[in-house]
Amino acid sequence: MTETTQKGTQAKKASKILATLTTKEKNNYLRLLSEALLEQSEWVLEENQKDILVAKENGMGEGMLDRLHLTQERLEDIALGVRKIIDLEDPIGLVEKMWINEDGLKIGIERVPLGVIGMIYESRPNVTIDAAALCFKSGNAVILRGGKEAIYTNRAFEKIMQETLETCGLPCECIQLIHDTTRASTQEMFTATEILDCLIPRGSASLIQAVKREARVPVIETGVGNCHVYIDEFADIEMGLNIVENAKTQRISVCNSMETLVVHEKIAPAFLPKLEERLAKYSVELRADEKAGKCLKHSVPATEEDYKTEFLDYILAIKTVGNLDEAIEHINYYSSSHSEAIVTENYTFAQKFLKEIDSAAVYVNASTRFTDGFVFGFGAEIGISTQKLHARGPMGLPALTSQKYIIYGNGQIRG
Amino acid sequence: MTETTQKGTQAKKASKILATLTTKEKNNYLRLLSEALLEQSEWVLEENQKDILVAKENGMGEGMLDRLHLTQERLEDIALGVRKIIDLEDPIGLVEKMWINEDGLKIGIERVPLGVIGMIYESRPNVTIDAAALCFKSGNAVILRGGKEAIYTNRAFEKIMQETLETCGLPCECIQLIHDTTRASTQEMFTATEILDCLIPRGSASLIQAVKREARVPVIETGVGNCHVYIDEFADIEMGLNIVENAKTQRISVCNSMETLVVHEKIAPAFLPKLEERLAKYSVELRADEKAGKCLKHSVPATEEDYKTEFLDYILAIKTVGNLDEAIEHINYYSSSHSEAIVTENYTFAQKFLKEIDSAAVYVNASTRFTDGFVFGFGAEIGISTQKLHARGPMGLPALTSQKYIIYGNGQIRG
Repeated sequence: MTETTQKGTQAKKASKILATLTTKEKNNYLRLLSEALLEQSEWVLEENQKDILVAKENGMGEGMLDRLHLTQERLEDIALGVRKIIDLEDPIGLVEKMWINEDGLKIGIERVPLGVIGMIYESRPNVTIDAAALCFKSGNAVILRGGKEAIYTNRAFEKIMQETLETCGLPCECIQLIHDTTRASTQEMFTATEILDCLIPRGSASLIQAVKREARVPVIETGVGNCHVYIDEFADIEMGLNIVENAKTQRISVCNSMETLVVHEKIAPAFLPKLEERLAKYSVELRADEKAGKCLKHSVPATEEDYKTEFLDYILAIKTVGNLDEAIEHINYYSSSHSEAIVTENYTFAQKFLKEIDSAAVYVNASTRFTDGFVFGFGAEIGISTQKLHARGPMGLPALTSQKYIIYGNGQIRG
Repeated sequence: MTETTQKGTQAKKASKILATLTTKEKNNYLRLLSEALLEQSEWVLEENQKDILVAKENGMGEGMLDRLHLTQERLEDIALGVRKIIDLEDPIGLVEKMWINEDGLKIGIERVPLGVIGMIYESRPNVTIDAAALCFKSGNAVILRGGKEAIYTNRAFEKIMQETLETCGLPCECIQLIHDTTRASTQEMFTATEILDCLIPRGSASLIQAVKREARVPVIETGVGNCHVYIDEFADIEMGLNIVENAKTQRISVCNSMETLVVHEKIAPAFLPKLEERLAKYSVELRADEKAGKCLKHSVPATEEDYKTEFLDYILAIKTVGNLDEAIEHINYYSSSHSEAIVTENYTFAQKFLKEIDSAAVYVNASTRFTDGFVFGFGAEIGISTQKLHARGPMGLPALTSQKYIIYGNGQIRG
């Protein structure tokens, strides 16, 4: 029996117990976990140093190293994140609606856990704790498959989480990490239909593509953000400059940052030179189509590939359009359906953009950077869904639940 | 380009138009469609006769023939079904919640269509109209892949639906039937990730299994019903007899009928002989485990396979258990997670069954036969989901929608 099958089978059993816990029991666990993380911070940081050492030997780049690196302060943030999940409303057991039908049956729709959730993610070790705590609070067992770069740190986290489960008299299989970091274990999770009720991949476009191609289990795709800002003919230019600067440069490595500027050809000559000036201090490389190029001092020609790419870098693709329909068509074709914004003072165009853009979050006159569970007021999120089934946009605790009809009768039979 | 790719590409375009229709426009179409079905009933019945002729030549059984066969009365029922969909609330555009966040962004959650829905189903021709009308009302384009047995009837229906679309000035690609009834076209739909936002298979266990194994597109599994009734130690025997008789025999061919009786060993000697008497007039074959067999005059031994099977026939598997936990374990293991019932007067056991049974609909003291969109008060349904993601239980119009965050700003950027 492979590690995944064995841990999966145990997780399924543990999920039955998890589903029956009270909110108090779950919050008590989270409180103890938060404390344990702080108490054992020295050891966790030592284990993290082992990951850092291996990563440096393997020549990992600065950005990646930074994401992998834990400090006392970062660990305190992670522990604080766990405590914040205590304050989130427990979605389980909520009966959203209950009614009596014509037969006298009392029918209710009750929120229930999904069961066993698989998470595949990359090198950020904080995801290990965040994801586990969110799955736990929503009554789900979780199987974590983190990146191999963080394996020492993740194993330390697993040990602390499982010891705390034992302290609470709960099966340690509520939260399990896959120790095998070869591709084989990922593959196994893709096809574990008897075990996983849901698989949430969190990471690069290539991971999401592999999941799309190979997964047999129900999946919620997350996080690939090829986001657009459209500067309409009737945009407030100063507002447009602020929004593009923010969406492109405030944090380049995140999924809700902007990758392509779509601009109306009538406003391009007034807008683009000012934008070039604004972005100069960030050395943003501009990849422009022909019309846009003519308005810019320094740019390279944009390719088809550029419009398809989530750069996560100081690169901006630019596309000029003759009208709003063309803008909508371009965005709906190239976008990863994450977040898009229009900047306009025209009422009709704003409404049309909101209606016809087919993405999880559609903005009028605001930066795409706001698509985020905390900003929307949901608290911690497990990811941002870019698919249409089940959950779309930032996923808080309710996205980790399903429903069940509970029906109270008194002997009814169907005539 | 294959038929599926070509029709899919057209459907995607049509779905953009469908998403912008008003409720009035959609209802007007449904009204005209309902009229057209009646006006052209003679022709439809002729085309249906062609299917019947072929089916008879191929030696189709009575039950299947009956499902395939249309009469004037059945056609009127189908047309009436379309008119009833007019009365259902249009879910599209509903903003369930709108709030202003800390940044002053006005954030709303709006219901939107899924886009293009694929339906794969078997020989009942009424599904062609029902599914198309439900997808249309929820603003979705649909690609129908019906059983080859009904191809003449389905093509006639497609013609009427498309002519009516043209009458309304709508693209006829809103509703399309795949004419290729070979396995190749089903396979293509399984993998049409660029086209289908959702695939809904409706039919036999073998179809659902094939979808599970081979589909790459997002799927909502429907309709396989291996349903259980558990007669608890503290059951009212007369109520139990009524419920089992109803759940097993009132309509054997439907997914919410009962397949396995689970019975507490303490009540089995009192309950089973009376049940045998009650079921005698339907000639129900009893397949019992050893303990149950001892309480029955005529039974055959139940096999592992029997407990796994959706008989859809006058056959009942029987399993005795020593306590409620055993009953729950048996049901959660063998069930297709559709509908299960407990018959008991014990309060604690009733609550435990509701909590721990992991199925779409869980009943206390009522027949499983009630799991149905009409009975629950949702109006027409497109199927009964037995999965946990997106939709679970009877799926009305809201199950055919997704959501999108619409955000009104006035220049906000993220700090």
